[in-house]
Amino acid sequence: MPQAFLSGITGFQVAAVSCGLKKISSGAADLGLIFCPEGAVCAGIFTRNRVKAAPVVISSRRARGGRCRAVLVNAGNANACTGRDGETAAMSTGRSLATVLGVPEEEILLASTGVIGRQLPISRMISSMPALRERLGPADRDGLLAVARAIMTTDTFPKVAWRTSEQDGFGVAGVAKGAGMIAPDMATMLAFIITDAALDAPALQTCLERAARTTFNRVTVDGDTSTNDTLLALASGKGSPLGGAALERFREALHGVCRDLARMIARDGEGATRLVEVHLKGARTPQEALAAARAVANSPLVKTAIFGRDANWGRIMAALGRSGAGFDPARVAISFGAVPVVKDGLTLGGEAEAAAAREMEAEEIVLSIDLGAGKAEETVWTCDLTPEYIHINADYRT
Amino acid sequence: MPQAFLSGITGFQVAAVSCGLKKISSGAADLGLIFCPEGAVCAGIFTRNRVKAAPVVISSRRARGGRCRAVLVNAGNANACTGRDGETAAMSTGRSLATVLGVPEEEILLASTGVIGRQLPISRMISSMPALRERLGPADRDGLLAVARAIMTTDTFPKVAWRTSEQDGFGVAGVAKGAGMIAPDMATMLAFIITDAALDAPALQTCLERAARTTFNRVTVDGDTSTNDTLLALASGKGSPLGGAALERFREALHGVCRDLARMIARDGEGATRLVEVHLKGARTPQEALAAARAVANSPLVKTAIFGRDANWGRIMAALGRSGAGFDPARVAISFGAVPVVKDGLTLGGEAEAAAAREMEAEEIVLSIDLGAGKAEETVWTCDLTPEYIHINADYRT
Repeated sequence: MPQAFLSGITGFQVAAVSCGLKKISSGAADLGLIFCPEGAVCAGIFTRNRVKAAPVVISSRRARGGRCRAVLVNAGNANACTGRDGETAAMSTGRSLATVLGVPEEEILLASTGVIGRQLPISRMISSMPALRERLGPADRDGLLAVARAIMTTDTFPKVAWRTSEQDGFGVAGVAKGAGMIAPDMATMLAFIITDAALDAPALQTCLERAARTTFNRVTVDGDTSTNDTLLALASGKGSPLGGAALERFREALHGVCRDLARMIARDGEGATRLVEVHLKGARTPQEALAAARAVANSPLVKTAIFGRDANWGRIMAALGRSGAGFDPARVAISFGAVPVVKDGLTLGGEAEAAAAREMEAEEIVLSIDLGAGKAEETVWTCDLTPEYIHINADYRT
Repeated sequence: MPQAFLSGITGFQVAAVSCGLKKISSGAADLGLIFCPEGAVCAGIFTRNRVKAAPVVISSRRARGGRCRAVLVNAGNANACTGRDGETAAMSTGRSLATVLGVPEEEILLASTGVIGRQLPISRMISSMPALRERLGPADRDGLLAVARAIMTTDTFPKVAWRTSEQDGFGVAGVAKGAGMIAPDMATMLAFIITDAALDAPALQTCLERAARTTFNRVTVDGDTSTNDTLLALASGKGSPLGGAALERFREALHGVCRDLARMIARDGEGATRLVEVHLKGARTPQEALAAARAVANSPLVKTAIFGRDANWGRIMAALGRSGAGFDPARVAISFGAVPVVKDGLTLGGEAEAAAAREMEAEEIVLSIDLGAGKAEETVWTCDLTPEYIHINADYRT
């Protein structure tokens, strides 16, 4: 669990302002900035969707350079499916920020989230750059919460997580947004990690990919992979050089921050009332474990049953059966929370099912599934599917 | 389109009774029978879900024999995930019917739909067999409607379709159920086709597989493949032998009946207000065309936008982009009904989007998508995703 207090990640400053990009012009912040005045090494993971937003195209190219001075992120407009005009718009916002901050344009990374297919209102964004610079403050808990709030769309709470190691003299902190168009096999909507740890860009990239594999890439809200997914990690190098045991503790801290943020994204899935952890074991291979866990986590029938607090294990069996994983249905075991409901592929009876339904009153539900076919296991996080998901997405643009 | 009147398929009798299997004990029929006193050749396609219901295990084995005297089908209980007891129960209902009808047990095919994981109340079913026999009447429109009603679960209307060829002296009629746990790559929930055409079992199987490929296997309501999917075709052989042009007309009639039923299943998806036809062209290969069409048809974000009458083409682009199909986003075109909304991957503007939203007031919406990458095309049917889907499935068992 994260510590209650974060005094700041050395080498970084953050800011957030409102420039009127969000649908409800409530003065809510919609433009966030992470600034590292002396530069940082960076690592990035981007959407694998073939339709990539303009900021993804630009940032994925720039991030390969391994150096970053600032990350500029906006909500309210995804700048996706906007063609050449969209890329030009993204470039101008970056150029404007580079001028205001006095840093090289190529070291500005960009990210956007919001409605697809509308051109970015760049004049409003560009005229907000001086205010962004003036607001810059320490990358502490309050500063990061402000950035996290600026990138919210249908999220219901800002997502910040951190770990520090006094022993090794480093801190790792991250912000993320989630809610909709969230599916595995990428680096989720938007997440930004900062650390003062000292390590080079290839090492940071390796650590980030390792952490994302079992955290962000194990979350699904609706199976829809976004056009804008971006996960960035920036290291200012202000701490002591990492090596041996300290590097291992850094990896653990980074993994912890990613895992916290990934779970928050699942918990705050659009319309969700429950965080659901699908823990699948007993598969023949890790691939089959993941396929089976995802089939359950993406099944609208399983997800609506959880909303209905119904321990409807038959729907879990059906999802497992179509997942492509190899197993004998007569060896499957399923528990809802601490309550076993299925053994040898058969129900343990009405009392067990009623007890399992009571387990679902908790805010977090663990579905433990044992295929009984091998030793591989995987964990995937999702949420229940509710009428609110429909309302949010039927009304999102109109 | 089917003819308005069906006087009956020669060689078949049908019946339906209530034996109290459905949740709401409203006296609704829940047990249906299709009987061919002198026998019929048969063909079958069954679920590819690894978790198979007991009647699927039994019927898929028996159907390989190519001969059938009767199909017994119940709603209200899927007899899936019921282990050896479930198979024994299914066998006893079949045996009881064989005795009552005086036909070989091995020529009775069985199908079930309803809740997964509960044992079949066989005594109630067995005691209804004499009533089923007494009710037997002609396989005409009213008789088939009664069978279609008996197999409804969350369906809102009975699904019957037919074609006749006076020229060739044959008729083809079918009944189906759909609503939930409907996904491609199998033979949908339950569908039964009868014909008096004269052809042998291998020819019938070939015709059936060909018809199912572009009809039942192109429907998706929620991406959840059922444990009970069963598509059976029975031919009594009372008509003239088929050959040459007549065989081709039979194939077309069979395809027409399957297509009508498949579209009815999509139209009557759980909670649906709209039938959505996704017509995808311009793909590099048929496999990519299908993958892209299915990604759109299964996207909860696309489906909720349609419920919201929002021509949200950005979600279609995102779904195409994660489908695995190869294409250049800058060459994509999208129309809602008759209204083009996207050209060269970009919006045609607010007026076009508003006109497209008006197209969605129709009960049937065709989404035409051109990837601009090749010549392959595919059509998939689905429905919108509504709060009612959640209510139905959150409350289904409780």
